Amino acid sequence: MSDAAPIAFLFDYLSPFAYLAWTELRTIATRHRREIEPVPVLLAGLLSAHGTKGPAEVPAKREYIYRHVLRVADRLAIPFAPPPTHPFRPLAALRASSVALPREQRLALVDRLFAATWGGAGGGVETDAAVLRCANDAGLDGDAIVREASSEETKARLRKATDDAIAAGVFGVPTMIVEGALFWGFDALPDLERALEGNDPVTPDAVARWATLMPSATRRS
Amino acid sequence: MSDAAPIAFLFDYLSPFAYLAWTELRTIATRHRREIEPVPVLLAGLLSAHGTKGPAEVPAKREYIYRHVLRVADRLAIPFAPPPTHPFRPLAALRASSVALPREQRLALVDRLFAATWGGAGGGVETDAAVLRCANDAGLDGDAIVREASSEETKARLRKATDDAIAAGVFGVPTMIVEGALFWGFDALPDLERALEGNDPVTPDAVARWATLMPSATRRS
Repeated sequence: MSDAAPIAFLFDYLSPFAYLAWTELRTIATRHRREIEPVPVLLAGLLSAHGTKGPAEVPAKREYIYRHVLRVADRLAIPFAPPPTHPFRPLAALRASSVALPREQRLALVDRLFAATWGGAGGGVETDAAVLRCANDAGLDGDAIVREASSEETKARLRKATDDAIAAGVFGVPTMIVEGALFWGFDALPDLERALEGNDPVTPDAVARWATLMPSATRRS
Repeated sequence: MSDAAPIAFLFDYLSPFAYLAWTELRTIATRHRREIEPVPVLLAGLLSAHGTKGPAEVPAKREYIYRHVLRVADRLAIPFAPPPTHPFRPLAALRASSVALPREQRLALVDRLFAATWGGAGGGVETDAAVLRCANDAGLDGDAIVREASSEETKARLRKATDDAIAAGVFGVPTMIVEGALFWGFDALPDLERALEGNDPVTPDAVARWATLMPSATRRS
């Protein structure tokens, strides 16, 4: 791996798109000799901060999104099966993923938790018992991780990561950050890859044109 | 072209993703010998019906989306420039596009209106004068189209198309409909194309699994 900064991967296990992006991002990172820094955040915190709804909170969208995820997973041959329940409480898994661990161990843990949520490895990740099993399956000390997950320090780390994400303009997951540039969603991966190649067409001039663009109509709220 | 049903393309000029999808969809349709049936709908009506916000209504998302659109347009070499204002009132353009016209004429009109909105052809499409110019530039009788656009029959057609879309579960634009299956967004085009090839992996069994999936957590609203 090079000395370039890692690709920050902001995620919540609730999002099937985060799972899909996770599987592809590892290949992309290897290809470009970059590390990945997984950053667990609370999707619910992002949605509340921006006053938006998650896809699962809009019935028509919820029904559609599953079809969409099935199609993408099938097209890219990514193993895919829904968790036991959805939406579920992601706190146990997110806090475990926020425990201070060497990067390789955190990658292994996140990988296993995603597999148990969306990858068909089963079980889901809602309970401490499920998280413990995943950590052990990843070859880690599950007991220590689950214990540390409920420490005040770990809880504060997850809250701070979510607050930092909101401050950086992050409104959904997955969001990848490279050299300060945000890439939101599974479908942004080709553009993330172009940025890694030094070909991001987003320039200050191009953005300035939009920043000064005024509305001539708004919806009544 | 074959006898297969046309691909319905539900859109509102407000959406840059509808513009991007429009440019690519024409190539896809030709490749698969399908006609396109452009169906103007009011994005604001879809958002109100589902209680959601459009991307331009969430400041952080608005800022991001423009970057995303710039990247996609650059990657696919699609001409792109923002309209004079955004959001704008799309009614004049949507009604003109709802006038009863032979399909080839409607395609030419929609193409021109998209070009004036997002394609860098300039001017925008907010006023009757702008719509008139676009219709004339498309080789059509602009005066007749603008006159007919304000008829009760045309207004009712746009309202009905929007209501029908909502009833069909459409929650955003662009949405493409093929043999009753919905494909939402620019990034669904590869999956739409697989469906046109008879390879849509969405089966009743796969969908049933999700339909019975229960939540174990919800956000307080």
